[in-house]
Amino acid sequence: MKIALAQLNYHIGNFESNTAKIIDHIQKAKKNGADLVVFAELCVSGYPARDFLEFDEFIDLCDESAKKIAAVCTDIACIIGLPTYNHKEEGKDLNNSAYFIENGQVKAVVNKALLPNYDVFDEYRYFEPSTEFNCIEFKGKKIALTICEDLWNTIENPLYITRPMDSLIHQQPDVMINIAASPFAYNHDEERIAILSDNASRYHLPLLYVNQIGAQTELIFDGGSLVFDNTGKLIDELPYFEENLAYYTLNEDASISFDHPTTLKAERAADIEQIHQAIILGIRDYFYKSGFKQAILGLSGGIDSAVVCALAAEALGAQNVMAVLLPSRFSSDHSLKDAEDLVNNLGCKSELVPIKNITGAIETALHPQFNNLPFNIAEENIQSRSRAILLMAMCNKFGYILLNTSNKSEAAVGYGTLYGDMCGGISVIGDVYKTQVFELARYINRDKEIIPINSIIKPPSAELRPDQKDTDSLPEYDILDKILAEYIENRRSSTDIIKMGYDEAIVRRVIRLTNLAEHKRYQTPPILRVSPKAFGMGRRMPIVGKYLS
Amino acid sequence: MKIALAQLNYHIGNFESNTAKIIDHIQKAKKNGADLVVFAELCVSGYPARDFLEFDEFIDLCDESAKKIAAVCTDIACIIGLPTYNHKEEGKDLNNSAYFIENGQVKAVVNKALLPNYDVFDEYRYFEPSTEFNCIEFKGKKIALTICEDLWNTIENPLYITRPMDSLIHQQPDVMINIAASPFAYNHDEERIAILSDNASRYHLPLLYVNQIGAQTELIFDGGSLVFDNTGKLIDELPYFEENLAYYTLNEDASISFDHPTTLKAERAADIEQIHQAIILGIRDYFYKSGFKQAILGLSGGIDSAVVCALAAEALGAQNVMAVLLPSRFSSDHSLKDAEDLVNNLGCKSELVPIKNITGAIETALHPQFNNLPFNIAEENIQSRSRAILLMAMCNKFGYILLNTSNKSEAAVGYGTLYGDMCGGISVIGDVYKTQVFELARYINRDKEIIPINSIIKPPSAELRPDQKDTDSLPEYDILDKILAEYIENRRSSTDIIKMGYDEAIVRRVIRLTNLAEHKRYQTPPILRVSPKAFGMGRRMPIVGKYLS
Repeated sequence: MKIALAQLNYHIGNFESNTAKIIDHIQKAKKNGADLVVFAELCVSGYPARDFLEFDEFIDLCDESAKKIAAVCTDIACIIGLPTYNHKEEGKDLNNSAYFIENGQVKAVVNKALLPNYDVFDEYRYFEPSTEFNCIEFKGKKIALTICEDLWNTIENPLYITRPMDSLIHQQPDVMINIAASPFAYNHDEERIAILSDNASRYHLPLLYVNQIGAQTELIFDGGSLVFDNTGKLIDELPYFEENLAYYTLNEDASISFDHPTTLKAERAADIEQIHQAIILGIRDYFYKSGFKQAILGLSGGIDSAVVCALAAEALGAQNVMAVLLPSRFSSDHSLKDAEDLVNNLGCKSELVPIKNITGAIETALHPQFNNLPFNIAEENIQSRSRAILLMAMCNKFGYILLNTSNKSEAAVGYGTLYGDMCGGISVIGDVYKTQVFELARYINRDKEIIPINSIIKPPSAELRPDQKDTDSLPEYDILDKILAEYIENRRSSTDIIKMGYDEAIVRRVIRLTNLAEHKRYQTPPILRVSPKAFGMGRRMPIVGKYLS
Repeated sequence: MKIALAQLNYHIGNFESNTAKIIDHIQKAKKNGADLVVFAELCVSGYPARDFLEFDEFIDLCDESAKKIAAVCTDIACIIGLPTYNHKEEGKDLNNSAYFIENGQVKAVVNKALLPNYDVFDEYRYFEPSTEFNCIEFKGKKIALTICEDLWNTIENPLYITRPMDSLIHQQPDVMINIAASPFAYNHDEERIAILSDNASRYHLPLLYVNQIGAQTELIFDGGSLVFDNTGKLIDELPYFEENLAYYTLNEDASISFDHPTTLKAERAADIEQIHQAIILGIRDYFYKSGFKQAILGLSGGIDSAVVCALAAEALGAQNVMAVLLPSRFSSDHSLKDAEDLVNNLGCKSELVPIKNITGAIETALHPQFNNLPFNIAEENIQSRSRAILLMAMCNKFGYILLNTSNKSEAAVGYGTLYGDMCGGISVIGDVYKTQVFELARYINRDKEIIPINSIIKPPSAELRPDQKDTDSLPEYDILDKILAEYIENRRSSTDIIKMGYDEAIVRRVIRLTNLAEHKRYQTPPILRVSPKAFGMGRRMPIVGKYLS
C-alpha cells in the first residue's frame, strides 16, 4: 500500500484556500500512484480556530469543504481532519474528527479521545472526547488512526485515564497513522520523536505521523512529519518549516520503504537555528495571512530592534521593511551610527524622526500639573510613547504593520513602556530571553556581519535618561534569564529557586516584578511562541492577585 | 440543625486575608449557635486563580490555610472550597475540592465532577473530574454536597455525560448543599434560580446554595446565595453585591426555617440596575485589591466618559477621581462645557490640558514623511494617542490608574484608537453597548441630573475631524447594537441575522468590522464583564483568520 503524507500550511477559516490545497495534493498523490493520502489534524478549518468553532455556520462550512474533497477521492483514499457535530444527546456539541474518505464517501469517522487543555490548548472547550475505538480496514490492511494527543498519554505521567491505542491494539491493526497539529517549541521535536517512537515500539506497529506547518498568529507549526518502523526506529523525517508531500510503501511484512532521499537528521538542529527558522515563518505568515506586506519598526541602535529588523528583512524582503530612527536628547551618537550601519547592511528603508520637539511639547503642556517635580519614569515613558505615536502614525498613513521588539526578559519583569515600546501588531522576540537574543544576533551574523558588532557588545540601555544601563534596574541578564526560566518554564517557587543557589533577594525581586507586570503583558501584542511556555494564550495569570506580588 | 451561609468577598492568592476572613466567620457562626457554616467554592485560594494553580507552592499554601481553618473548627463544622492534589496516578494533578471539617479534622472531601470549560471558564485546564460520589453524615443527617456546575447539567441540553446528584440520591440524603463561584451577568440570576429550583424539585430535597461576591479583575461575583425548599420553591435569597452571613434551620420534616428578615426579591432588579451595581463593585475591587486609590480619565464631554466618571466617583469617592479635559482644535465649545458641568455635578478633581501644541509638534516632525498627504485617520489617531500620553504621564507622575471609557459597540467594530482612547488599566463599560450606556446615564440621573442632559442628547461624536459624527462611519446604534448582540451573544451567522430582517449590507459590514478588530481587542485592558458574552477571556478568537473578515 502506497501512502502519501501531505505536510501543508493551512489558514484558519480560509475554506477556499485550504480546500483547494487539499484537493490539489489529492490529485498529485493520485497521479503518483498513492492508495491513500494523509492530511493533518483540523486541516479543513485550520488550527486553532478557537471560538469560530462556536458558530454553526463555521462547522457547516467545514462540512461543505469535506464534501468537495470527497468528490475528488476516486481511485484514492484520503484522511482529513475537521470539526464535526457530536450527534450524541449528551456532551459538548462538537468532535475533533478525522474522516477516512474512499470512493467519494466518508467511510469512517474517528474522533479524538485525548483533548489537550493545557498551555496554549483549549480543546475541551469545544470537543467531546471519544470513547469508541475502531480500526479502519483498507486494501486488506487494518489502520489504527488516532489524532495527535491520542498517542501522548505517557506511561510515566499519565494526564488522561484512557489510552486509545490500548483499545485499538485488540483489533490487531497493521499500521498506526496519527494526524496532528503540534506547534513548535525549541525542545519539542525531540519530545515528539521520543513519545511517538515509544508508541511504535510498545504496540509493535509502524507509525506514520503527519504534522502541519505554518504560523497562526502566535502559534508556529513546524512540520517534521515522522515515520517509524515497528521497533520504534525513526526511519524518515520530513523537512521542518516547509510544505512537503512524501510517499511510503507499507510492505506485507509491515516494513516501510520509500525511494526519496531522506531528510532524517543526523543530529538535531541547534535550538537557536530552530528558533530562527520559526520566527522567520512566524513573521512571514502573520503578514501573508493578514494581507499585509510592509513592516515598520523603531531602530534604537540596540540589539533587540537590530535583531528584529534583520529577521523581518529575511522574512519579508529588505525592501518591505521600514526602519525608523527616533533619537531623543538622551540617545548616544553610537546608537544612531549602529542603527545606520544595520540599515546599510540590510538594505532596508529608513527614516529619521527626532522626538525632541514632541517630548518638549508634552512636557510643556504638563508643566502646570507637573510643576517642577523631578524627572522620573513619567518623562522616560513620554519618550517611549512619543516614538510609538510616530510609528503608529506612519502605519496609519502608509499601511505598515508595526513590529514589536520587546524581548522575553523585559516582558517578564515589566522593563518596558506600555503604549510605548510595548506596542506592535506582533511581538517578534517576546518569547526569546535577552541572552538568547545575543545568540540570535550571532547566528544572524554567522556568515557575515549583519548586526553591527557594536550593537552586540555594548551594555544594553534604554537610553531614556543620561548614562542609563539596564543593569541599573535589573540583575545581569545571565542571572535574570536563568531565574526567569525556572519560574516561567519550570514553575518553580521562589523557595526552590533560592535552594538552587541563587541570591534570595534577587529571586524574590525578579518573581515579584514578573507578577506585578501581568497587567502590562495583558495589553501587549501576540507573541511568536518558540518556547514551551510563552507569555500570552499559554500562560493565564490573574491580574489582580496577591500571590507573589 | 442550624446552618450558616457565608457569602464573602475573597482575593485571589491573598491567603492571609482569605483565611482570616473565613476564621472570623467561623467564630461568629459558632457564637450564634450554628452547627455548620458553609463557605463558597475555592474560597481559600480565591477564584479564578488561573495558572497560579500550576505552582505546587500555591497548592501547598492552600493546604496550610485549610489546616489553620480546621484548627478553629471545634464545636462547629464548616465547608470550605480549595484546590487539592489528585492522589490518583492518572489524570490531571489537581481536584477542585470541598472539605467538610469537623472537630478540627477534614472529615470528608468532595471533588467537583462537572468542570466548566466554556466562556470565561478553564477548569478542565487544571482539575480532574470526580467519578466518586458520597453523602456526608453529620448530626444524624445526610448531606449531598456538590460544587457549583455539578448541579448545572440541564435536562434539555446536557453538556456532560454524568449528573452527580443522580448518584448521590441513591444514598438518600436529607439536604443538598452547593458551593459556588458563579460570576455575574445581567441575565444570570434568573437562570441560576431556575436551574437550582429544578434540582430541588427533581430530587425532592431542600437546597442551600452559597455564592461568593467581589470582583476579580474582569469577573464580578454577585452573591445572591439561595435557599430552596424540597418542592423547588425559593424561600430565601441573600443580598446581591455585598457580604452576608445568614442562618437557617433544617427541621426534622426537611423544611427550612429562618428568623431574619428575608431579602427575597418580589421582582427581579432591572438589568440596568444590576449592571450599575456590578460595575461599581468591579471598579472598587479592582482598585482595592491592587492597592490603588486614585483613578484618572479623559473627559470629552461625550456620554461614555461622563458615565465612567460618574461610576468611578460613586465607587471610589469623587475626591479620588481626576477628570482631565484634553481639547483639540476639533473639540466643540459644548464639549468643554458639558465636561465642566459634570465635574461640578460630581465634585471630582479636574485639569485642563489642551493638546493642540502636541499634535502640532507631531505633525511637524512627520512633515518630511507625510509630505502634504491629505488629513486622514493618521492625524485623527495622533489626537487620541496624544491624549493617552498625557493621561499616562499623569498616572506615572502621581500614581493614578487610567480608566478606559470605550463601550462595547465601539470595541466590537474597532471604532477606537489602539494606544489612544483604548488605553487604561481596566475597561469600565467595555461590556456595555452604546444603547445601554444611554440607559446607564439615565439610571445614574434617576434622582437628579448628574450626567449633563446635553451629553445624553447630542449626537455621539469622536470629534477628531470637523463636524464628525459616529454615524458617518457606523450604522445607528439601535441597529448596530442589535446586530452585535445577535452575533456576539447569540453567535448567529450573518445569514441568520439577515433572515431576521436586518439589512444585508449592514449586517455583513458590521460582522466584518467586528472580526477585523480582533487585533485591537487583543491589546485592550481587561473589561468588567456584565453580559453573558464579554470581550476578553470569555471570547477567544483567532487574530489572523479568514472567516468573516
